[in-house]
Amino acid sequence: MKEEVENNKVESGKMEDAALAAPRGTRDLLFEDKIQRDEITNVLKNVFELYGFNPWETPALEKWEVLSSKYAGGAEILKETYKLEDQGGRQLGLRYDLTVPLCRVIAGDSSMPMPIKRYAIASVWRDGPIKLGRFREFVQCDVDMAGPKSGLADAEIISLVCDAFTRLGIDYVVKVNNRKLLEGLLESLGIEAKNVESVILTIDKLAKIGSPGVEKELIEKGLAIPLAKKITSTFQEFEDGDFEEVLAKCEKLVGKNEKAKQGLTELEEVFDFLSSFQKDVSTKVLVDLSLARGLAYYTGTVFEAYAKGSKVTSSIAGGGRFDDLIGKFAGRESIPAVGISFGLDTIGEVLKLQSGKPAKKTVADVYVIPIKTIPQCISLASELRNNGIRTAFDLMGRSISKNLDYASKQGLKYVAIVGPKEAEQNKLTLRNLETGEEQLLTITAAVEKLLSG
Amino acid sequence: MKEEVENNKVESGKMEDAALAAPRGTRDLLFEDKIQRDEITNVLKNVFELYGFNPWETPALEKWEVLSSKYAGGAEILKETYKLEDQGGRQLGLRYDLTVPLCRVIAGDSSMPMPIKRYAIASVWRDGPIKLGRFREFVQCDVDMAGPKSGLADAEIISLVCDAFTRLGIDYVVKVNNRKLLEGLLESLGIEAKNVESVILTIDKLAKIGSPGVEKELIEKGLAIPLAKKITSTFQEFEDGDFEEVLAKCEKLVGKNEKAKQGLTELEEVFDFLSSFQKDVSTKVLVDLSLARGLAYYTGTVFEAYAKGSKVTSSIAGGGRFDDLIGKFAGRESIPAVGISFGLDTIGEVLKLQSGKPAKKTVADVYVIPIKTIPQCISLASELRNNGIRTAFDLMGRSISKNLDYASKQGLKYVAIVGPKEAEQNKLTLRNLETGEEQLLTITAAVEKLLSG
Repeated sequence: MKEEVENNKVESGKMEDAALAAPRGTRDLLFEDKIQRDEITNVLKNVFELYGFNPWETPALEKWEVLSSKYAGGAEILKETYKLEDQGGRQLGLRYDLTVPLCRVIAGDSSMPMPIKRYAIASVWRDGPIKLGRFREFVQCDVDMAGPKSGLADAEIISLVCDAFTRLGIDYVVKVNNRKLLEGLLESLGIEAKNVESVILTIDKLAKIGSPGVEKELIEKGLAIPLAKKITSTFQEFEDGDFEEVLAKCEKLVGKNEKAKQGLTELEEVFDFLSSFQKDVSTKVLVDLSLARGLAYYTGTVFEAYAKGSKVTSSIAGGGRFDDLIGKFAGRESIPAVGISFGLDTIGEVLKLQSGKPAKKTVADVYVIPIKTIPQCISLASELRNNGIRTAFDLMGRSISKNLDYASKQGLKYVAIVGPKEAEQNKLTLRNLETGEEQLLTITAAVEKLLSG
Repeated sequence: MKEEVENNKVESGKMEDAALAAPRGTRDLLFEDKIQRDEITNVLKNVFELYGFNPWETPALEKWEVLSSKYAGGAEILKETYKLEDQGGRQLGLRYDLTVPLCRVIAGDSSMPMPIKRYAIASVWRDGPIKLGRFREFVQCDVDMAGPKSGLADAEIISLVCDAFTRLGIDYVVKVNNRKLLEGLLESLGIEAKNVESVILTIDKLAKIGSPGVEKELIEKGLAIPLAKKITSTFQEFEDGDFEEVLAKCEKLVGKNEKAKQGLTELEEVFDFLSSFQKDVSTKVLVDLSLARGLAYYTGTVFEAYAKGSKVTSSIAGGGRFDDLIGKFAGRESIPAVGISFGLDTIGEVLKLQSGKPAKKTVADVYVIPIKTIPQCISLASELRNNGIRTAFDLMGRSISKNLDYASKQGLKYVAIVGPKEAEQNKLTLRNLETGEEQLLTITAAVEKLLSG
């Protein structure tokens, strides 16, 4: 297997350090990275719960028979699935996504009251080639609901995406399409039903490889040149169009194709509901008729979010409606479902690029430095903590200058210095390490100042 | 391998349902369980961060050579470790604890500024026999610091434990001991150095098997009957004693044993610092000279917390000082460290037993039921969400009575009903499902009521 990028730690370290690196393709999220990751997931969890989604957690280990079920991943993904055996000889694997466990749980309990609205933020594993930004163990962040057929559910999920990025402080755009519309449209343009899936996979690359690239690939796939040209020019025409305009054009084009008409109705319904959810829907949520999202299991609405004006061009979230998957998994009738997956690594990258500030190395708000006042400093720390101030203090018995050095290396803004004089007055000297400013404060005044940042 | 308890789902389900159960020894934490789990971990994380501990996350996969390192788990735990291989033929395993990754990271980077204060809440795997309440995949919740030698650090961790259980609403007691004291004490009582570790393992069972059990086991281990009797009677004497009293007795007993004297000094130092941290230390934190905590790697202070007056008798947290482990791992000089591990499953059990209320099935604060007012209800939901109210609403187009039924099955306290009349006045009818009380309210008034619970 070709592995493009070497694991940094292994590359740069001495031999002993290399042995102590995380396994190839995995990584340690140490303080800076994990603090940022937690900030992101806290915002997301909060939004998910505001929308009435509930958390659940399934094991990392799944039965091999579940992971390899006909309606689960398919051969390509199974090749990348870590396989193992327990002491009882049971065949197991590490899950490669959170959708298979979702299907398993719902399929396994037909008594669950609908709608099921769940979110999950958890690791998945794929033993594939290592590329920049691609890991063998990474966290997925999925929000799904099962039960509702209505476009109201699709609109709610898209609205959740909008709120999530607004709260994260990311300027975004959400592109929306409908798989039925796309398939029907291609049929009306003259693509045979059996080739639709393959043509879709090429059109999905429009943003990446451009019209000439798409045309070339369609011809390579065996399409007649005039048909390939017709398809690319049609999708070019749709690009960047106003919602009403695009739909009008589209309606004309698809004529009597029932599938396309159904898709069009669904798409209009979603936008209709969405306008009640979000006031700036017209600038933030756009129709993109070339959007397919590779996965074959999508059956209706599909959507993808991008960060506007960022160097990060890959999507920051994506999802859609998958009405057949869970039912097939359960061997029951269709169970409608719609979901979204947030790209935590990509979101982290966007935020890092736009922040400009160095990442926080500690969550602490203040670092307490005792000068022969340990008991008083312990009481002070307890009081600060009781008031919600995250407080670290010198546990190493260092000198003031070494403590100040440690605190600034940690990126702390404030230190509280308590010498015998301060202790006597039950006060502290609060130093702002960014400005150098010092103030002698009562504990109450210090709490107030620290709480206000 | 004998497996005592069958996986419930597999036992009760039909064949297809059995196939869809989580793998043997693992479990799905669905809404009720995961909501409770998150409530616990949120409180704990908050306390950890108030104490200036920072989060980090390492991969579930570790190199086999790290997991099987001489200073890591040992043969018994390796037998229970899930082993696998990546496509490149690298030998990997699923981590069996969070201590080995802690050691690996610190050992691998000698430039990390001390003290290192990290917490981690993450899954670990042990492919062992399945007993009631014992799982093959479970979450550990560890708080550790590396660097500080001083008992101040031990006291800070014990104080954190006290604050954590106070905030969780669990009445607790923390038992504290010192390994040097225990070892030295046994030496002064006449145990040969080579037998100390084995005798400690028996004494550690005092609370479980009582004095006669300990005596019997010591004799079985080859101790002379008078010596076994002397040991059990000594430890019996220490039981439930006042701190000063126990230490005075102890001081007399250990005489000139240097190790014991050192342990005694350390223990006194920890209690001394602790009294500055916690006002009720004398009733909440007790010396227990029989406490050892099985693990051989502890070198000084050890402690365990128990829920007072609960049917759950196993410990809810436990930890201690391990000054040698990280250094040995790193092949460097000793790196002092002290840590604590919280038992999330046991804590959950304690809280369930003492709550009496049924577990929450949803995080939602209110469920909105439209009566031909979908667009208005969408706006309402958006406004509630913007005000921090976790809001679900009918996505299935059900009748009022079916919606009310769904909402009460979810354990929701409030529903907001919006018919055409309410919509016209920009109001809603808020029904308390517990009391049946209904009020026609403006959105602002409803927000206020919902925020106050």
